[in-house]
Amino acid sequence: MASLTSGAYPPSLKAEEQDALIETVKDWSIGNGLAVRPPPTVIAAGADPKAITAINVPVTLFPSPFPRQCFTQAKSVQKTYNELYASVSRDEEFLAQVVKEVGGGDEFIRDLWNVHQKVKAEGYTQPLSLGLFRSDYMVHQDTTSSTPTLQVKQVEFNTIAASFGGLSTYTSRLHQFLAKTEYPLLESSIAEGALDLPENATATGLAAGIESAYHAYPESDLGHQRAVIFLVQGGERNVFDQRHLEYQIAKASPTIPVFRLAYADVLKHTTLAATTKRQLLYRLPRNPSKVYEVAVIYMRSGYDPSDYPGQEAWDARYHLERSHAIKCPTILTQLAGTKKVQQILTTPKSFSTPSALSKFIKDDTDDAAELWRSFTNIYPMDMSEAGLEARKKALDPQLCQAYVLKPQREGGGNNIYRGAIPPFLKSVPEEHWGSYILMELISPPLSKTSSSATVTWSRVVSFAN
Amino acid sequence: MASLTSGAYPPSLKAEEQDALIETVKDWSIGNGLAVRPPPTVIAAGADPKAITAINVPVTLFPSPFPRQCFTQAKSVQKTYNELYASVSRDEEFLAQVVKEVGGGDEFIRDLWNVHQKVKAEGYTQPLSLGLFRSDYMVHQDTTSSTPTLQVKQVEFNTIAASFGGLSTYTSRLHQFLAKTEYPLLESSIAEGALDLPENATATGLAAGIESAYHAYPESDLGHQRAVIFLVQGGERNVFDQRHLEYQIAKASPTIPVFRLAYADVLKHTTLAATTKRQLLYRLPRNPSKVYEVAVIYMRSGYDPSDYPGQEAWDARYHLERSHAIKCPTILTQLAGTKKVQQILTTPKSFSTPSALSKFIKDDTDDAAELWRSFTNIYPMDMSEAGLEARKKALDPQLCQAYVLKPQREGGGNNIYRGAIPPFLKSVPEEHWGSYILMELISPPLSKTSSSATVTWSRVVSFAN
Repeated sequence: MASLTSGAYPPSLKAEEQDALIETVKDWSIGNGLAVRPPPTVIAAGADPKAITAINVPVTLFPSPFPRQCFTQAKSVQKTYNELYASVSRDEEFLAQVVKEVGGGDEFIRDLWNVHQKVKAEGYTQPLSLGLFRSDYMVHQDTTSSTPTLQVKQVEFNTIAASFGGLSTYTSRLHQFLAKTEYPLLESSIAEGALDLPENATATGLAAGIESAYHAYPESDLGHQRAVIFLVQGGERNVFDQRHLEYQIAKASPTIPVFRLAYADVLKHTTLAATTKRQLLYRLPRNPSKVYEVAVIYMRSGYDPSDYPGQEAWDARYHLERSHAIKCPTILTQLAGTKKVQQILTTPKSFSTPSALSKFIKDDTDDAAELWRSFTNIYPMDMSEAGLEARKKALDPQLCQAYVLKPQREGGGNNIYRGAIPPFLKSVPEEHWGSYILMELISPPLSKTSSSATVTWSRVVSFAN
Repeated sequence: MASLTSGAYPPSLKAEEQDALIETVKDWSIGNGLAVRPPPTVIAAGADPKAITAINVPVTLFPSPFPRQCFTQAKSVQKTYNELYASVSRDEEFLAQVVKEVGGGDEFIRDLWNVHQKVKAEGYTQPLSLGLFRSDYMVHQDTTSSTPTLQVKQVEFNTIAASFGGLSTYTSRLHQFLAKTEYPLLESSIAEGALDLPENATATGLAAGIESAYHAYPESDLGHQRAVIFLVQGGERNVFDQRHLEYQIAKASPTIPVFRLAYADVLKHTTLAATTKRQLLYRLPRNPSKVYEVAVIYMRSGYDPSDYPGQEAWDARYHLERSHAIKCPTILTQLAGTKKVQQILTTPKSFSTPSALSKFIKDDTDDAAELWRSFTNIYPMDMSEAGLEARKKALDPQLCQAYVLKPQREGGGNNIYRGAIPPFLKSVPEEHWGSYILMELISPPLSKTSSSATVTWSRVVSFAN
C-alpha cells in the first residue's frame, strides 16, 4: 500500500479516467447488489411512483489507505471488545447507574430503562441475547511523541441496528475488482499487488451470528416452526444491506425462515403465547394459517426516538422484550452502547478509585492494555470534578475546537462539533448537560484520501440478565 | 412440476400474497444484479439526469412450466444445432445463394454480403470465429395425432448479439430462491421439491466461450497485451446482461482484459496494424499509452440496420471483418442466422431434390432426426412452387391466421402476425416478397402461464472461411 502520507495515493485522474472509473463503479455496483433505494432528493417520489428504482451506494473510487498495524490492532482487539460489552450488558447495576446519570436529560434512555424494569419485575424468560456489534475507529497520529505513532482510536461502539455489514462485503469486492481491472490502466497506475486488500467476510459473519442464535433456541414446545424476524423501519432505503444478510442465511441455512416486519406492525402481527415462557408468535400477514415461533428478533429499528412516535411503539418494545425470543439486542445490550458507557469505560483510574473497566476486564492483562490503547479521551459533562473541567473546555471558544459533544444517540447526525458546542450548550438546560459526553477529536494523519475511518465487525452471543 | 395443463399452476394469489411476492422479487433482483437501466417511459430522463437508476428486470413471479421431455429434447439437440450452424457459416456458396434470394428485397443483407465479398477479395487472415448461439423454442402440441404429443419447435436461431444469457442465470436463481423461501408460504402452496428447477449456467458457459477464443488467439507478434472487446450499442439499457459475462470472465480468467467499446467509436479507437495479418489494435481512450491487440470482438451491436446509420458504420464493420481479431460472429456466421437459412434448412426433401439439411448433416442419422423433430413448417415467399403456395396462404384472410411473416431481421419486433399479413404484403413491392419467410405459428398447449418459451444457450468455436 502506498504510504498514507506520501501524496501518491490516490492517483490523480484525468477527466476521462475518472469518467471511465465512475462508469465501471456504477455498473458493477448495480450488477452486484451494492445498491440503495434512492432518497427523494435524488429521484423525486413522483418520478418513481411504484418505488422500483435503485441506485449504486456511494463509495470511494479507491480504497482508503489504512495502516496495516492499525488494521491488525483493530481486528485483534475486537474479541476483547465483544466480551467487554457482553459483560457490561449483563451488569444491570452498572447500567442502572449510567441511566441515573444521563436519564435526567434523556427521556429516551429513561423510557428504555423503564421497559427493562417492567420486564425484570415479572421476570425475563430468555437468558440468551445476541449481539451483532460494530466498533468504529479512526487512525490517530500522536504528534506529541518524538516518533509519531499511528494507532486506531475508537469512535464508538454500536450494539443495536449496526448497519453496512451487508454492503461492506460488496464494497470490498468492488475495490478488489477495480484493483484487478481498472487501476492498472491508469496513467498513474497502481500495480495490482500493491494494494494488499483484505477479504471482508462481514455479511457471512453477521448472518452466522443470527444462525447461531436461531439454533440456540430450542424447537417449539407449541409445535410451530421457528423463524427469524428482521424488525425494520417503514420505508427503509438501506434495504439491500439488510437483504444481503437474509440472502446469506438462505444460502447457508436454507431451512431457517426469515421475515421482515415493520416495527409499526409488531403488535398487529405478533402475539405472546399464554404460557410462562411467553413465546413470541408471528402470524404471516399474507397467509394467517402460518404461525411461527420467533427464535430471533434482529432489530434494524427501535434505536432512535423517532422509532417511538407514541405509546403503542413503547408497548411493542415491551411486548418484544418480555417475549421468549432471543433479542438482538436486549434493552440492556442496547443501553450498553450508549456514549455514557463508553465515557465511563474509557476513564482511567484516579489515585483513589479504580477504573470502571477493571470491573469487567482484569487490569494488567494484555487484553486490558489493548483496550486502553484504543481509547481516546472522553469526559463526562456532569457535576463531578472531571465533568466541571470538561464543561469549561466545552464552553471555551478556543478549547472547544478540539472536541465533539455527543448525546446518547445512535448515528453521527446528532453530534455537535467544535465551535458549535458553546452556543448549543447554552440552548440546553444546564441540568441536562450530564446526558452528554465530551470527546476529544481524533487526529487522523494528513492524507489526500477522503476517509480514514474503518470499522470492524463482529458477533457474539452473550448471556444477559 | 405441476402438470402443464392442470390449472393448478401457477397458484392463484390473494392480493396480499402477490404484493409480498412482488416486494421479494423487486429486492432480490436488485440485490443480485438482475437489473436493467430504466427506459425513459419508466423513469423520465429529466428525473435521472446522471443515469444512475436501475430497475429490476421484468420476470414472471413463478417459473413457467415446461415439459421435462421437451427440455431434455432442446438440450439434447443443441450440439447438433451448433455443428449445423458452424457448417452453414463455413459454406459460402450456400450463403451466397441465400443472399441472392433475399438480397433483392433486403438492402441490409446485401450490404453485409458486400463487406464479406470485399474482405474475401483481399483474403481473410483469421480462420477462427466464435459463435455464441441462442436457439429459441416453443412447446408445440400436436392435436392431430390420436395421443397428443408435446415437442419443442424452434422459433429461431440467433447467431449475433444473442441476449439475456447473463440475466437468465440470475432469473433462474431468483426462482430457486422463491421456491425455497416464498412459494411454501402461499395458501395454495407449492412444495419446494415439486418444481424441480434445473440449474442455469449460461453466464459461465458464454464467458467460457469468449475465454476459449481468447486463448485460441496466439500471443501478440507486436508485443501488445491481448484483449477482448465487447462491441456495444450507445446508451445500452440491457448493460447488466452483458456485464455479467464480463464479471464472469474477470472471475474465471482475471488476466484477460475486457473493454466495452461503442460501435460508433470503432474507427476512432482501433486501427489495423500495417502487416499482412492486419491485427486489430485498440488504444485505450482514457490512457492512449495502453495499446492492446484485440483477440476477440464480441458483438452486442451491428445486428440491426439502425446500427449502421451511415457509411462510416459500414466502414467500421469492414475494418473489423478484415482484421485478424476473432469475430463473434463473422459476417458469414451472422448471415447463417437469417430466417431464410432457417426456412431452407427446415424444408423437407421433395421427390426430385434432397433436403438442404442433408448437405450439412447426414440423412438417416439420429442427429438429423432430432433436428427434423424440432423444425416447424416454414415456407419461402419467392416465385418457386412452394413460394407461390405460401403467398396464397399469406394473402388469404382465413388461412393467414395460422402464420407469422418474418423478414431477415433479429428480434421479434419486426414480425407480422396473422390478420396483419395480407395488408402488410400489399404495402410491399411484390418483387421484395422473396426476402420474407412464412412460418406456421407454433401451438403451445393451453395453460394459465404467461409464457412457455424456452431457450437453450450454447457456444461453439467454429472454423470459418
